[in-house]
Amino acid sequence: MDPHVSPVGLDKAYRLINHGPTVLVSARAGGVDNVMAAAWACALDFAPSKLTVVLDKIAATRGLVEASGSFVIQVPTVAQLELTRAVGTRSLGEEPDKLERIGVELFRMADIEAPFVRGCSAWLACRVIPEPHIQQAYDLFIAEVVGAWADTRVFRDGRWFFESAGPEWRSLHHVSGGHFYAIGEPLAAPA
Amino acid sequence: MDPHVSPVGLDKAYRLINHGPTVLVSARAGGVDNVMAAAWACALDFAPSKLTVVLDKIAATRGLVEASGSFVIQVPTVAQLELTRAVGTRSLGEEPDKLERIGVELFRMADIEAPFVRGCSAWLACRVIPEPHIQQAYDLFIAEVVGAWADTRVFRDGRWFFESAGPEWRSLHHVSGGHFYAIGEPLAAPA
Repeated sequence: MDPHVSPVGLDKAYRLINHGPTVLVSARAGGVDNVMAAAWACALDFAPSKLTVVLDKIAATRGLVEASGSFVIQVPTVAQLELTRAVGTRSLGEEPDKLERIGVELFRMADIEAPFVRGCSAWLACRVIPEPHIQQAYDLFIAEVVGAWADTRVFRDGRWFFESAGPEWRSLHHVSGGHFYAIGEPLAAPA
Repeated sequence: MDPHVSPVGLDKAYRLINHGPTVLVSARAGGVDNVMAAAWACALDFAPSKLTVVLDKIAATRGLVEASGSFVIQVPTVAQLELTRAVGTRSLGEEPDKLERIGVELFRMADIEAPFVRGCSAWLACRVIPEPHIQQAYDLFIAEVVGAWADTRVFRDGRWFFESAGPEWRSLHHVSGGHFYAIGEPLAAPA
C-alpha cells in the first residue's frame, strides 16, 4: 500500500467530509468497477459513523451499490479536477472502458469490495443501511462508515492541513456545470 | 427589505449550498425563534428543489421545526464566524435570550414563518416533507425548498462571486470544534 495512506479512526471519519467537498463514489459488482462524482454526500452521525449520498437512478454506479451493498466515498483533489469532471459526466453505459480512458487508477483494500481511487486525499468505505423507501422515493442512500483512510500529506492527527500541503491537495467544491471552488484558508472561531 | 436581497429561481436554489457550506438553521413556533448551526445539510433534488438536514434530538431548533413544519437554511459568511460558532454551541434551553446576547439580527419574509438571519449570503425557505421513520431513526429531515434568496453582492445571475466579493463574504466550512475553512478560489474544469 502507498505509505502515505494511513487509517483514520472511525470517530474522526466525519472530519474527512465535514467541510462539504464534492466526492467520488466507487463501487464494484459482478466484476465491474465504476466511479462517479457526487456533490450531494454528507455526514449523518459520529458513532457509529454514518453518511448519506444521493445516487440518481440513471447512474451506473447506483446499480453496483445496490448489487453489492457497499461503496467507497473518496475526496478528490485540485490535481484531479479533470478526472472528477470526467467521471461525473461520462457514462459507463456508453463507454464500458470509461475508467481506463479517463485514466482513473484504482487500488484495493483487504476485505473491501469497492475499489479505491488513487490520488485522492481521503477514503471512507461504506456499507449500505437498507432503507428502500427513501432510496426509491428520493435516491437517498444511508450508509455506515466501516473504514476510513487519509493521505498523511494533507490529513493527519485528526485534521486537514490544506494550508500547508500545497494547492494541488485542496478539496473540490462543485457549484454547477464545470464550475468548482477549491477549499480556502483556515479560520479559528473563539471557543 | 434590504435592497441587496434578491430572489433566486428555485431551479437554481441548489447552487446556494452545492459547494458544501456550513449553514444556519432557523425556525419559529409558538412565538419562539431559534437559530442553530449545521454542517450536515445537503442538496437532495433539483426540481422540485429539495434538501436534507440533520437535526439532533437535543437541539431546541428541532422542536420548532417539528411544531411548525418549516425552517430556513441560510449561508453564513466569514464576517459571521463568531456568530456561527456561538449559535452552534449555545443552547436556547440554557439561555432563553441566546439570540439577543449573541447579537443575531432577524428579519421576516412575507408568508414565511421561520425568521431569516441578517447578514447571511443566501437563504432557502423550506417545508418539511414528513418522513417520521428517518427523522426518528437518523435525525434526518427532508424538505422542499419553497423560496430562495441571495445577497446580490456575492451571488447573482445564478452563480457565486466569492473571488470578487471581498474575503468577508466567503462561506464557512466546518471541520470540528472551532476549526473552519473559508471557501477558496474558483476552478473551471474543461467540458
